[in-house]
Amino acid sequence: MRQPILADSVRLADDGVHILDRRVFPARQEWVRCATVEDVAKAIEDMVTQSSGPYFATAWAMVLAARESVGRREPLDHLRWAGERLIATRPTNNHQRTAVHAVLSVVDETDVVGSALAGARAADEQYRARSRALGAHTADLLADGASVLTHCWADLYLVELVTAARAAGKTFTFHCTETRPYQQGARLTAQTLAEMGVATTLITDGTGGAVLASGQLDALVTAADRVTMDGHVVNKVGTLGLAVAAHTYGVPFLAMVQAPDRLAATAADVPIEYRAGAEVLAAAGVTHPGIRGHYPAFDVTPPRFVTTVVTDRGPFAPQALAGYYQEEP
Amino acid sequence: MRQPILADSVRLADDGVHILDRRVFPARQEWVRCATVEDVAKAIEDMVTQSSGPYFATAWAMVLAARESVGRREPLDHLRWAGERLIATRPTNNHQRTAVHAVLSVVDETDVVGSALAGARAADEQYRARSRALGAHTADLLADGASVLTHCWADLYLVELVTAARAAGKTFTFHCTETRPYQQGARLTAQTLAEMGVATTLITDGTGGAVLASGQLDALVTAADRVTMDGHVVNKVGTLGLAVAAHTYGVPFLAMVQAPDRLAATAADVPIEYRAGAEVLAAAGVTHPGIRGHYPAFDVTPPRFVTTVVTDRGPFAPQALAGYYQEEP
Repeated sequence: MRQPILADSVRLADDGVHILDRRVFPARQEWVRCATVEDVAKAIEDMVTQSSGPYFATAWAMVLAARESVGRREPLDHLRWAGERLIATRPTNNHQRTAVHAVLSVVDETDVVGSALAGARAADEQYRARSRALGAHTADLLADGASVLTHCWADLYLVELVTAARAAGKTFTFHCTETRPYQQGARLTAQTLAEMGVATTLITDGTGGAVLASGQLDALVTAADRVTMDGHVVNKVGTLGLAVAAHTYGVPFLAMVQAPDRLAATAADVPIEYRAGAEVLAAAGVTHPGIRGHYPAFDVTPPRFVTTVVTDRGPFAPQALAGYYQEEP
Repeated sequence: MRQPILADSVRLADDGVHILDRRVFPARQEWVRCATVEDVAKAIEDMVTQSSGPYFATAWAMVLAARESVGRREPLDHLRWAGERLIATRPTNNHQRTAVHAVLSVVDETDVVGSALAGARAADEQYRARSRALGAHTADLLADGASVLTHCWADLYLVELVTAARAAGKTFTFHCTETRPYQQGARLTAQTLAEMGVATTLITDGTGGAVLASGQLDALVTAADRVTMDGHVVNKVGTLGLAVAAHTYGVPFLAMVQAPDRLAATAADVPIEYRAGAEVLAAAGVTHPGIRGHYPAFDVTPPRFVTTVVTDRGPFAPQALAGYYQEEP
C-alpha cells in the first residue's frame, strides 16, 4: 500500500523545517521552509499545517532552537523561550506542549543540538507508535464492511486505522464531511483515503444528519484534539452536531485520542480557540459590510453523546477514562 | 425600509421571463432571459432560481405558454403540456404544481393570454399575501430581541418576518448557516438581511450545533419546502441536524410553510431530490477520481423535533396540522 502524502508532511533539514502547506493541498504540493523557530510558530498560527502537523513542527523547531542557541551564554534559556513561543501558537490542542516537553526533558547542556535532535526523533517515533496502537484498537471495534462517517481530518490516526484494518483483512468505507471553512475533510481526509484506495464519499457538513438518520452508517469516528478526564471530546467544530445526531439515531461515536488529558479535568479547562470571523466570510466570498462572521474552531461534545474514547491503550467509556492512567506501569 | 433585491427577482416582460441568477448573486447581478417555457424549465432545473423563485417563474411561464399557444388548434393542450414540463423540473417542493394549477384553473379559451395573465397575477399576489400573513404570525411567536438561527434561504417568508417584526416594534438578530454547496445562506439570506439592516452573523454549516448548545439562541426558524399532514418538515439538507441539536438543547424550532400539503400524508409521499454528487465535488474543488459525491438536496425532520409549524393561518403543533384545513371557510 502506498503511503499517503500527508503521512510525512513535516521534515527537518539542514536549512530549516519544511512543512507541506495544507492550505493548498492537494491542488498544489508546496512546502514552506521555516528557517527559524519564529517561522515555524508563524506557520502554525497561519494554518500552514494543523492536526498532528504542529506536533512534528514543534519537535523539529526545538532542534532549530538548539541550533540557534549555539554560542549563547545560556542556551537552555533560548530553548525555554522557543518552547513557550511554540506552545502559545494555538491554544486548544496540547500537541505542542507535549512535543516541547519531550525535547526539554532530555536536552543536555554538554550537547544541546545532539540531545535536542535525539529528543525530537524520539518524540516523532513515539507519536507514530502511539498512533499505530490507536489505529489498531479502533479497527478492532469495527466490523468488516463497516460504513464510517468521519469529520475533519484524523490525520495519522486515520491512516493507521485504515492500515490496521487492511492487516486484519477488513474493508471499511468512508463518508467524509467537507469541513468548512478550511475543507480539511475534502482536501485532506477524502484525498488521503482515496490515495490509500479506500471507497470514499464526500458530503457537505449539513448532510451529516441526513446520512446518520438514513441507517446506512455503522459508526461516527473522529479524532479529538483533546479529551478531558470526565469524557468531554474537544474537536473541530461540527463534531458536536454530528455526535448529537449519531446519538439520536443510535450510531456509535468513537473518538480517537492518544490519551485523555490529565491536566484537563473537564471542559472548562480547555480553552476554545476563536479564529477571526473574517475567515468564514472570506471562505464564503461574502463582502457585504453588514455581515459578521463567527468562527469557533472547536466544539465540545459532552460524554453523554460519546460511545467510546479509543486511546493507544485501548477503548474506554467516556465515564471511565481514569482507567487510562491506572494502567500505567 | 429598502426592499431587498431578492424580493422581486422573477419578472414577466414582453420578451420573456427575466430571472435573477441566484447562482452568482450577490457577487454579480445578472438576469437570465427565458424566451420560452422550455427556457424557464431549464433555468429551474439548473438552479438559476430556487425557493420561491420557481413558483413565480412557473406562473409567468404559463403566460409564455399562453402566448405560444396563440394560433394553435388546441391551445389548452399546450398549456397542459407546459404545466407538466414545469412541474417535472424539481420534485420535492410543490410550488410549481400550485402555480400551474392557479393558471390552469382560470384559463379561458376565448382569451387564453388575457386569462392566463390574470391567473398568474392573482397567483403572484396570493403568494405574497400568504407570505405576509405567515411572516406576521412568525414574528408574533418571537420576543423583541430574539436571537434566531436560520438555515438556507426562507425567501419572502424571511423578508416578511423581518418586515412584520419592525412593524411590531421588535428587533431580531440572525445567525445564518452558509448552506453548502450552493451557499444560499451566505449569498441570499445573510445578504438580504444585511440589505434590510438586520444584525447578521454568518457561520459554517457545522457550527450550528455549537451555537445551539451555547445557550445564546432563542429559536431555530427555517422555511419548509413541504410539510406533510403528519408533521414531517422537508427542507434543505442540514435542517434535520440543526433540528435535532435544537431539540437536544431546548431551542424551539419553528418551520414556516404557507400550508401543510394535503396530498402528502407522510414523508413517504414526498420524493427527495438527489442532485448529482459532482455538484458537491465541484463546490469543494475535489478532483481525485477515487472520491464520489453524495447530495440529497433535502432532508426530512420528523415531528418530534419540530416545535411549531407556522402557516398563513397561524401556528400549529406538528401533530395538529389537520386543523389547518378544518378552519377553511
